[in-house]
Amino acid sequence: MSKKLTKRAEDYSKWYNELVVKADLAENSAVRGCMVIKPYGYAIWEKMQAELDRMFKETGHQNAYFPLFVPKSLFEAEEKNAEGFAKECAVVTHYRLQNDPDNPGKLRVDPEAKLEEELVVRPTSEAIIWNTYKGWIQSYRDLPLLINQWANVVRWEMRTRLFLRTAEFLWQEGHTAHATEAEAITEAELMNNVYSNFAENFMAIPVIKGLKTESERFAGAVETYCIEALMQDGKALQAGTSHFLGQNFAKAFDVKFTSKEGKQDHVWATSWGVSTRLMGALIMTHSDDHGLVLPPNLAPNQVVIVPIYKTDEQFDEVSEVANTIMSDLRARNISVKYDNRTTFRPGAKFAQHELQGVPLRIAIGPKDLENGTVELARRDTLTKEVVALDALAEVVEGLMTTIQNDLYKKASDFRAEHTTKVDTFEEFKDVLEKTGGFILAHWDGTNETEDKIKEITKATIRCIPEDSVEESGVCVFSGKPSNRRVLFAKAY
Amino acid sequence: MSKKLTKRAEDYSKWYNELVVKADLAENSAVRGCMVIKPYGYAIWEKMQAELDRMFKETGHQNAYFPLFVPKSLFEAEEKNAEGFAKECAVVTHYRLQNDPDNPGKLRVDPEAKLEEELVVRPTSEAIIWNTYKGWIQSYRDLPLLINQWANVVRWEMRTRLFLRTAEFLWQEGHTAHATEAEAITEAELMNNVYSNFAENFMAIPVIKGLKTESERFAGAVETYCIEALMQDGKALQAGTSHFLGQNFAKAFDVKFTSKEGKQDHVWATSWGVSTRLMGALIMTHSDDHGLVLPPNLAPNQVVIVPIYKTDEQFDEVSEVANTIMSDLRARNISVKYDNRTTFRPGAKFAQHELQGVPLRIAIGPKDLENGTVELARRDTLTKEVVALDALAEVVEGLMTTIQNDLYKKASDFRAEHTTKVDTFEEFKDVLEKTGGFILAHWDGTNETEDKIKEITKATIRCIPEDSVEESGVCVFSGKPSNRRVLFAKAY
Repeated sequence: MSKKLTKRAEDYSKWYNELVVKADLAENSAVRGCMVIKPYGYAIWEKMQAELDRMFKETGHQNAYFPLFVPKSLFEAEEKNAEGFAKECAVVTHYRLQNDPDNPGKLRVDPEAKLEEELVVRPTSEAIIWNTYKGWIQSYRDLPLLINQWANVVRWEMRTRLFLRTAEFLWQEGHTAHATEAEAITEAELMNNVYSNFAENFMAIPVIKGLKTESERFAGAVETYCIEALMQDGKALQAGTSHFLGQNFAKAFDVKFTSKEGKQDHVWATSWGVSTRLMGALIMTHSDDHGLVLPPNLAPNQVVIVPIYKTDEQFDEVSEVANTIMSDLRARNISVKYDNRTTFRPGAKFAQHELQGVPLRIAIGPKDLENGTVELARRDTLTKEVVALDALAEVVEGLMTTIQNDLYKKASDFRAEHTTKVDTFEEFKDVLEKTGGFILAHWDGTNETEDKIKEITKATIRCIPEDSVEESGVCVFSGKPSNRRVLFAKAY
Repeated sequence: MSKKLTKRAEDYSKWYNELVVKADLAENSAVRGCMVIKPYGYAIWEKMQAELDRMFKETGHQNAYFPLFVPKSLFEAEEKNAEGFAKECAVVTHYRLQNDPDNPGKLRVDPEAKLEEELVVRPTSEAIIWNTYKGWIQSYRDLPLLINQWANVVRWEMRTRLFLRTAEFLWQEGHTAHATEAEAITEAELMNNVYSNFAENFMAIPVIKGLKTESERFAGAVETYCIEALMQDGKALQAGTSHFLGQNFAKAFDVKFTSKEGKQDHVWATSWGVSTRLMGALIMTHSDDHGLVLPPNLAPNQVVIVPIYKTDEQFDEVSEVANTIMSDLRARNISVKYDNRTTFRPGAKFAQHELQGVPLRIAIGPKDLENGTVELARRDTLTKEVVALDALAEVVEGLMTTIQNDLYKKASDFRAEHTTKVDTFEEFKDVLEKTGGFILAHWDGTNETEDKIKEITKATIRCIPEDSVEESGVCVFSGKPSNRRVLFAKAY
């Protein structure tokens, strides 16, 4: 397999697809729209999971696990949610296969083993969880209920792309119940903040926090908070959402509590999730024409050491130095791998680690042994320097922070360059066509205008940014009055 | 809800079911045979996962993720595996619901959205994984391939019990590929050893390692290694299995590699797994009539502190001491929770922590403040002692090891008392009826005898123990010659 990637400028979409496969992150499977997450890709996802899980627990949440299947009668209960997901759900109708009498050696569905009630493979778990919460919540003492689930979900998408849109994906979904509306809103906002902190500080991806418009809201939500990131091709990617669900699910599943004062009321709910889609955001924010670029926080190996040698004796000497470096780096909590495979040459190793985005590469050869130095190469800048052995651990430790910060800054600068305020629809279309990116424009607040803009330009309102300032203006499309700009973009 | 448990001696099965629910471990869901794992139960499972995951990685395995669905044509490919699972698999036949014209507000399967090929919800992943490995393995350089997956699987069991047998369960499944038969066998044995180490040293559950007989083997395996534990009611529980799959799956999916010498051959395979069933083993090995008993290694909270106070001032004073204790214990890596809820009295808190198996309880009251002491209660022995504050952290740290070891010893003693060598079928039936437990008996090695014994007594061969010594004798049933004893029991 050629390791050479298509260039981004040539065909961004092709570059992405090739990179995901060649960097060993994921591949398509024999099941339509479902992916296999390969060990290297999964190791990055595990790093995301560990950090998110820590953040959820720190904010008082506990993990639990709910069934994969949702009986149709529960799936239907919250009408908008059902309507939103009915068109893309996998349905289990039978519970047994049998030998196919017409095709020896083949199996077929056993017509006798039809389920009385069909089971929907969860596209999201509000229905099954709220049906469970009904038994868990009686009194204000049972609230708040702060639960998260790590799970797989299935949405039968017609056009799929690795990580970005797959029929099955991995995610976490938080589901909380509260005694008051205000507390639930605070929770939904808190979790959107957790997501933005995670994206910015851990993944080095700058995001814009805001509220979705009505037409972009989660099916069944009163408000949807989100974080929106900008990819290198000028398209936006929704990286996480947090929903204030009001009393919709509590009413659909009749979940009431008795307050301190003895009054009965339906509880207030939130749900929030991020998924393996974040892998797509990660790739499309930082990577380049040479392959993946990983922020140190997410790199399965932060440093790789490649030995350069001709003789066995040289190999032994280099390995001795490599071992010392590894102990020093591990003592500083830096993950490091010694690539001492004998089946590959240094050049092939360099190419692989570059493609897989290892943040730092240390090469040690006979010259280095003489001089007490190593060659240190940064993946993000593709720069090299010679570093004295006795300064190495400290330099590497410093670079972990530097690279993390530089990647964030680079992405922030890119976003700043690709965020445009426009005041006319001509400008709007012009910017979209020429540079893409985020567009801040006035909008009259109607679904109708939003739909028409989408129809004409394919751009959607990504969110009403949290930090947008009041400013009077007129809608770029309708000319009607508006008091704040909203964020438009074409989106993944 | 009454917190009072049925006694084990009265009705063991009822005791188990009540305990699982009342200790907040799991409950039945609205989906037939599927459980909800509640936060407290899930926290224990997370501890198991973390330790197993560490052990897998230490032995060179990486995690990955494969699709939930197996297309029918792949499911069929390995004949014995297909035959073994066909009778209990959930089948997805449609990918969309639509409004039901006959029932306003209801949905039905959209007859137009029938899948061309049915998808089986994975009961195990050999088929989908080996179909993937075909693309990953070309040369000896690609071997060994050592991969594990944490996932949910579905087996449509007719009679289900929380944790022990559920339609959906959580597990890990390792799937490895090797260049030689010997290496694959070594791997299967290694992983069975990992499981036995985990069960004994981490869960404090003594297990017997051995080989399954042909009739108890995994569908598609050449050999199945297993670990078998003994529950308090004298029934055995299979706690983990590791399969040597020979070249069966490699042949079914045509996975070949080129050796160093340039020869092509099918690769050799293993698979191995443990599941949330381990929660059942944990409960039934250690718990008592008062509720759950947890080994310190698996306790979400190893220590709980309960304040005893009448006035706010006393509460503040007790809390100050509690805070100091918590810092001291956490510095020793002991997890501790301060149960300062004001909505419950100390007696109710004691009862809850006893039911939930917290290994150590510290109570601090005004008297203790005066004397510089606390009351320390062990959950496993239900004993209490007064401990000086300045010795507390060390005493607690010591008890963590003591309790872990004592639980293992208690379970080992129980097993020793309930393991009987028998030489006649009368004795065999007698032991089964009176005390149950493990029975070591001679067997003639035929399926026929095994089946008949099962038919008459409900006991099965749990395994041919790894450490069984050669010893000539005659089969307890047929009287035919035998050269080693095998392990019989009634089993979960």
